[in-house]
Amino acid sequence: MIPRYSTPEMTDVWSDTSKWGRYLEVELLATEAHAEIGVVPADDAASCRANAPTADDAFVEAILEREAVTDHDVAAFVDVVQSAIIDAAGVDDGAAKWIHYGMTSSDVGDTVLCWQLRDAADILLAEIDRLIEVLVGLAREHRDTVMIGRTHGVHAEPTTFGAKVALWALQVARDRTRLQAARDTVAVMKLSGAVGTYSNVPPSVEAFVGNALGLQPVPATQVIARDRHGEFLYACASIGATCELMAVELRHLQRTEVREAQEGFKPGQKGSSAMPHKRNPISAETVSGLSRVLRSNLLAGLQDVALWHERDISHSSVERVVLPDSSHLAHYVMRRMGRLLSNLVVFPERMQANLDASYGLVFSQPVLLGLVASGLTRDDAYRIVQRNAMQAWDDGVDFRSLLEADDEVPNDILDDAFDLRRSLSNLDTIFTQLDDLP
Amino acid sequence: MIPRYSTPEMTDVWSDTSKWGRYLEVELLATEAHAEIGVVPADDAASCRANAPTADDAFVEAILEREAVTDHDVAAFVDVVQSAIIDAAGVDDGAAKWIHYGMTSSDVGDTVLCWQLRDAADILLAEIDRLIEVLVGLAREHRDTVMIGRTHGVHAEPTTFGAKVALWALQVARDRTRLQAARDTVAVMKLSGAVGTYSNVPPSVEAFVGNALGLQPVPATQVIARDRHGEFLYACASIGATCELMAVELRHLQRTEVREAQEGFKPGQKGSSAMPHKRNPISAETVSGLSRVLRSNLLAGLQDVALWHERDISHSSVERVVLPDSSHLAHYVMRRMGRLLSNLVVFPERMQANLDASYGLVFSQPVLLGLVASGLTRDDAYRIVQRNAMQAWDDGVDFRSLLEADDEVPNDILDDAFDLRRSLSNLDTIFTQLDDLP
Amino acid sequence: MIPRYSTPEMTDVWSDTSKWGRYLEVELLATEAHAEIGVVPADDAASCRANAPTADDAFVEAILEREAVTDHDVAAFVDVVQSAIIDAAGVDDGAAKWIHYGMTSSDVGDTVLCWQLRDAADILLAEIDRLIEVLVGLAREHRDTVMIGRTHGVHAEPTTFGAKVALWALQVARDRTRLQAARDTVAVMKLSGAVGTYSNVPPSVEAFVGNALGLQPVPATQVIARDRHGEFLYACASIGATCELMAVELRHLQRTEVREAQEGFKPGQKGSSAMPHKRNPISAETVSGLSRVLRSNLLAGLQDVALWHERDISHSSVERVVLPDSSHLAHYVMRRMGRLLSNLVVFPERMQANLDASYGLVFSQPVLLGLVASGLTRDDAYRIVQRNAMQAWDDGVDFRSLLEADDEVPNDILDDAFDLRRSLSNLDTIFTQLDDLP
Amino acid sequence: MIPRYSTPEMTDVWSDTSKWGRYLEVELLATEAHAEIGVVPADDAASCRANAPTADDAFVEAILEREAVTDHDVAAFVDVVQSAIIDAAGVDDGAAKWIHYGMTSSDVGDTVLCWQLRDAADILLAEIDRLIEVLVGLAREHRDTVMIGRTHGVHAEPTTFGAKVALWALQVARDRTRLQAARDTVAVMKLSGAVGTYSNVPPSVEAFVGNALGLQPVPATQVIARDRHGEFLYACASIGATCELMAVELRHLQRTEVREAQEGFKPGQKGSSAMPHKRNPISAETVSGLSRVLRSNLLAGLQDVALWHERDISHSSVERVVLPDSSHLAHYVMRRMGRLLSNLVVFPERMQANLDASYGLVFSQPVLLGLVASGLTRDDAYRIVQRNAMQAWDDGVDFRSLLEADDEVPNDILDDAFDLRRSLSNLDTIFTQLDDLP
Repeated sequence: MIPRYSTPEMTDVWSDTSKWGRYLEVELLATEAHAEIGVVPADDAASCRANAPTADDAFVEAILEREAVTDHDVAAFVDVVQSAIIDAAGVDDGAAKWIHYGMTSSDVGDTVLCWQLRDAADILLAEIDRLIEVLVGLAREHRDTVMIGRTHGVHAEPTTFGAKVALWALQVARDRTRLQAARDTVAVMKLSGAVGTYSNVPPSVEAFVGNALGLQPVPATQVIARDRHGEFLYACASIGATCELMAVELRHLQRTEVREAQEGFKPGQKGSSAMPHKRNPISAETVSGLSRVLRSNLLAGLQDVALWHERDISHSSVERVVLPDSSHLAHYVMRRMGRLLSNLVVFPERMQANLDASYGLVFSQPVLLGLVASGLTRDDAYRIVQRNAMQAWDDGVDFRSLLEADDEVPNDILDDAFDLRRSLSNLDTIFTQLDDLP
Repeated sequence: MIPRYSTPEMTDVWSDTSKWGRYLEVELLATEAHAEIGVVPADDAASCRANAPTADDAFVEAILEREAVTDHDVAAFVDVVQSAIIDAAGVDDGAAKWIHYGMTSSDVGDTVLCWQLRDAADILLAEIDRLIEVLVGLAREHRDTVMIGRTHGVHAEPTTFGAKVALWALQVARDRTRLQAARDTVAVMKLSGAVGTYSNVPPSVEAFVGNALGLQPVPATQVIARDRHGEFLYACASIGATCELMAVELRHLQRTEVREAQEGFKPGQKGSSAMPHKRNPISAETVSGLSRVLRSNLLAGLQDVALWHERDISHSSVERVVLPDSSHLAHYVMRRMGRLLSNLVVFPERMQANLDASYGLVFSQPVLLGLVASGLTRDDAYRIVQRNAMQAWDDGVDFRSLLEADDEVPNDILDDAFDLRRSLSNLDTIFTQLDDLP
Repeated sequence: MIPRYSTPEMTDVWSDTSKWGRYLEVELLATEAHAEIGVVPADDAASCRANAPTADDAFVEAILEREAVTDHDVAAFVDVVQSAIIDAAGVDDGAAKWIHYGMTSSDVGDTVLCWQLRDAADILLAEIDRLIEVLVGLAREHRDTVMIGRTHGVHAEPTTFGAKVALWALQVARDRTRLQAARDTVAVMKLSGAVGTYSNVPPSVEAFVGNALGLQPVPATQVIARDRHGEFLYACASIGATCELMAVELRHLQRTEVREAQEGFKPGQKGSSAMPHKRNPISAETVSGLSRVLRSNLLAGLQDVALWHERDISHSSVERVVLPDSSHLAHYVMRRMGRLLSNLVVFPERMQANLDASYGLVFSQPVLLGLVASGLTRDDAYRIVQRNAMQAWDDGVDFRSLLEADDEVPNDILDDAFDLRRSLSNLDTIFTQLDDLP
Repeated sequence: MIPRYSTPEMTDVWSDTSKWGRYLEVELLATEAHAEIGVVPADDAASCRANAPTADDAFVEAILEREAVTDHDVAAFVDVVQSAIIDAAGVDDGAAKWIHYGMTSSDVGDTVLCWQLRDAADILLAEIDRLIEVLVGLAREHRDTVMIGRTHGVHAEPTTFGAKVALWALQVARDRTRLQAARDTVAVMKLSGAVGTYSNVPPSVEAFVGNALGLQPVPATQVIARDRHGEFLYACASIGATCELMAVELRHLQRTEVREAQEGFKPGQKGSSAMPHKRNPISAETVSGLSRVLRSNLLAGLQDVALWHERDISHSSVERVVLPDSSHLAHYVMRRMGRLLSNLVVFPERMQANLDASYGLVFSQPVLLGLVASGLTRDDAYRIVQRNAMQAWDDGVDFRSLLEADDEVPNDILDDAFDLRRSLSNLDTIFTQLDDLP
């Protein structure tokens, strides 16, 4: 992912030093596991651990150089580690040769990849918790900030800004559930060899390493099944879609004609190189865009599931791109959305003004129901309401006044119908659900 | 979905009569719920129930005709139901007007859609259970049917056909978990009105109807949030990807040069209009293709999440296509795959012959490990093995014979290295996991 | 495609009778071509043509029944045709056996599919021409209908509604170019046999049939390469994206707060089952949704390109769904968009009112440029403009009045800067391009 | 794109220094254009050009630092350029203030982006020409290298390796046509201001700059329409799909059981860290994988078409990722595929051996046709051929011998039917088409 949309935490997980450091740790643990069962002398395992190289930039550089010869990155890595151990020991005491003993590249590589995904998922879980917290706070703050609810972009009935945000919080919480499930699905590992038969490494070695890393050993072919990685990408894409939902709403609310909210604008910031007055919803727009990339990455990833036989390597090039990218982007969009929401400027008076601007038509349904309850057929009631509603809309006059002047309308139903408090009196049903969020 | 890929069960769920019948039931339940709280006279609710029309083809036809006037399908439906109740009662006793009382179209429509999705998910769950059963049976039957494991399409190490199928069973079981989660996510409903504020219908009505239908009431805007529907589509797409994995494998195994398995061929079937000898893996190929459609439908569905404000209707056209289509296709691919697997002809002798055809090279890793364990460095061991392996491959001669003739190879390691039984002795680790499947 | 989004013209192309009627025609032409080169007796070819069945529902029914036995649709078709010819002749005079002579199923099937795609493309071309005509007319009608141009949803500078529509016309014209290219790419055929080697049918037969159908013979494997079908799906998806662009704009313009345009509302139409005043942009929303399906179908189709060897049949199931569906949907969205635009109600006075509502800030850039031209540095000029712009915005006061009162602003630049006519004086540059449209 | 899949040529186009250097050039040209029409003093334009900064790393660094204040990259760029000109001149002579005169960020940014896309397309065109050249050479080299043609992975009829490759060459040539069209579609520019009305810059300035850069000025909103960028992404995705087609074929041909071809294997290369004998088709697998990413990027890009009003900025984040990425990947997959094909080892004797391995069944269709031509009904002929074919297949015996022993078969048809030369005699029809390739 380009630096602009990368986060430091994800960079730590997905950097080359992180990757090869994890490879090294898996190899050392496997050697120690082999020592446990007497295949590798305990001294040799200890020597490997003691003389193992540090996973720094030089280490990565050495692997890349060696790969130019081997054309195989794991083979290069094994060569470099063994040499480094011998160099550090000052002598080839026979310990280094046990590195990678009984393992196939994918044992290490796939275990490391899932380890990275598990850590990426944990970072996302922490971020999603922060986002939920921001949303719950904002929802409660604006619990009673009345605004017009819109369907099809058209005024429908009143709601509150807090109710809108509360629904977002609940949706993000569902994404959290998906993310937690995906996290558990990818927190696995395998050391079962070339085709997953444990032909050269007993299951106990796998169990030892899995236990040390907190990853669940699972049956596999040469590789861990790719439906797992697909689930991770789905969780990221669903997060993206939810953030897009919020972003699109916030973009709408920032329209010049609506102006019910505004992204925080810091001193010195230029909204436009040409038009000095502009304050644009660029954070929300950026989030909207990145959600498209998150969705697309899912599609690429789902095509990796149908590998040939015990594996082909076509998934690898895809995953080198989309797994880090979706990790970064899911993290970035949540973080940016969280910041946007934390700094959001809300204009309750504009919300009230917009609500008032549609002539009271937003109460047309309670009027309709009042007429039905008073004994009219639904069809007659509908006709009466529509007639007055359309006149109000077309002529720009007050809906209630028209109704009061209409002989077919019993006026005693109007107070209740136009009572804003009544129409919002059940919102607790939504807000109590926030109490159950993590 | 075109008839070719439709299933009768899904057609029952997604037909027009099913849809409008469910609409009717929701309306009747809502009227009864309103009677419970005293808004609607109990007699009126009873009259609606007693005089309600049957949801048959004529009913659907009447709605379509009415929609040509209203340009709004739910408004048309309400008109037709109210007329039908009055007609059946023989008089307008005032009961019919309570139909749709306090509700917005989406209250009914979105509740029905989730009801259909819930039922579709239940059908898929039943089918996935059958598929798992077939897979577990096939896995156990071929627990010891030895075949070559392949990576990159190239012989790697021995495995068994049963092990391969067991991994599929475990993967399908993971899809079952996803499907169950999606099922629970969509088994919801809402009757909270135009913008989800319960402005004209108290939550108790929603609770009454939800309870009757076995659907969980949830906070909503005008509509139920579309991340839920997206999760259903993801579960279907993941099922598709898993079936594709199996299908691709079975297509490989049916290649002329491999011929380790064959789709059942029924009497009278023609493999080719031109080439009478051909028996083609067309079931597996069809499943491969349909998985692409399932993936694409997910993408379309995830773009429905970011609806505007309290809803726009852009999701509706998408969902009229992709929700039934993905339901049908997920059902179809599982059913067809299950049938394919049930009738699959497996050729153990061909599997053995193919295994034997690579000169014993599939045992190169245990030889390598044996050499390392005997004291050689990994690099020396690798060099020795590769030298002999390449000669075996290039000259087409037996690998073990070459090793026996190689002075650098201590011959006492070869018996163990070339022991097929040893290499497969840990497969129980995989098979025991099948015991925990549902 | 479901009836709701199907068009009669596309149904004619994609119906089963159309398909099998085309199969029949290809077979008859091929028989005649074989007669031309003396392989088939001329009388036999004439007898096939004379006694060939009609491609009606009964014919399709017979094929389906036969397919239940053969499990191969083309083999079933050949059986049915041969029987029908013999039945019609009253005797087996040996003519019928020449049907399908030398051909493989895909010779016929792939030729017919491209024939259908060519016809579908021609229907789309006719519709796109109509859409362009509507757009050009609307653009010219509103050439001088001034409205605010918006970026990020925020007022930017004035434009005209006609200019907006003119750009749409030009974009649709680019889609027309893509569609024409796709049409030419799919207007091809092949009769080169099982693996495309003309092993059993000479190229002259292919040339004869291609010439009769107006389809270009092309080298092929068993099937015509699927990049061609992908290009058709891309052209449809691009049309969808362009229609989505227009639809989203029209949805924005119909917002309650903006209300610069409105979808035509026919007598009797109900905007909402609950809220009688609502007039919703449902046509535009439907178009928005269907564009998602068109995009997704492209994705499915592009995965069909990489068929195995000389073909596998995995593309077939995909294409049975997505090729008719994208044909229908591209046709439907263009037609519906054309109707929407033809009936669109535009409110010039609302456009003017909205333009006026941002305090004249939309002229901030000409003020900035005037200040720079008068000798200020860009930075100073920017600072002055931003200071006054922000005050105008925050306090809701007239921008020009603030500038006039600002000592740093030379007032003689303001008349020109705030001249709306000047700012729109170059629009001819756009409109002259419409003259070149087809 | 990660370094592994980047190419140096594309890095030159898409680097930050390239981008900002192009920005600078557009600004300088625009200033010169303004001098042409007398808006900017000629000396000032000359001073800007003379004192303009070099687009090096320090320049990019300065812009990034400034952006941290402005939160707007183009505004930061303008600030940095103006300061640099003043610094280089040693005095603020009033020239610097003309930089960005009359322009909006997107004038510069969108012109530069299309300029980059045009250059990327030119690089791809050069690479696609090289790929076509390699393919044509390989096709002609193996014009007569006989191999079995396979459908559904099953032996069908003979073909030649050259014919297979020739079809690839023709398909790549179609992608070249698409790429050329996309190149022309993106080779455009605009300097028409904030909403595309040329309100503050006359069309002649745009024409001047477009002419200097070789980019066609086009009507636009604030930005150039995104269907153009979509077409570029489609061309890249289609190239990816075609390379995937070739890659999948080459993976099949490298299977252990087939072994008709092999990727070049360089000295020192390790096929597997565990199994020394392995030579895996990793280049082809990598190409397979990356085609998935190319497809997905198209999908993300097509969602950018429907920007709001005169533009929103949601496309920008998507394009920062997918436009460079698809440029790199399309280039990389073609280059890697070209190298793979150049070094491909083909095994004609294995091809012959595989052809011979299906008992002569690949001639079943000419036998069928011979029987029909000798007077049998198609049904009888089919029955006879299928009976013998199935016996040959099931018992592993020679098909022709069985036919010779069959009383129903006139033996004089067999020589012709089993004549391989005859079956391939029409291949020139394919090869002559290569002569027309560029």
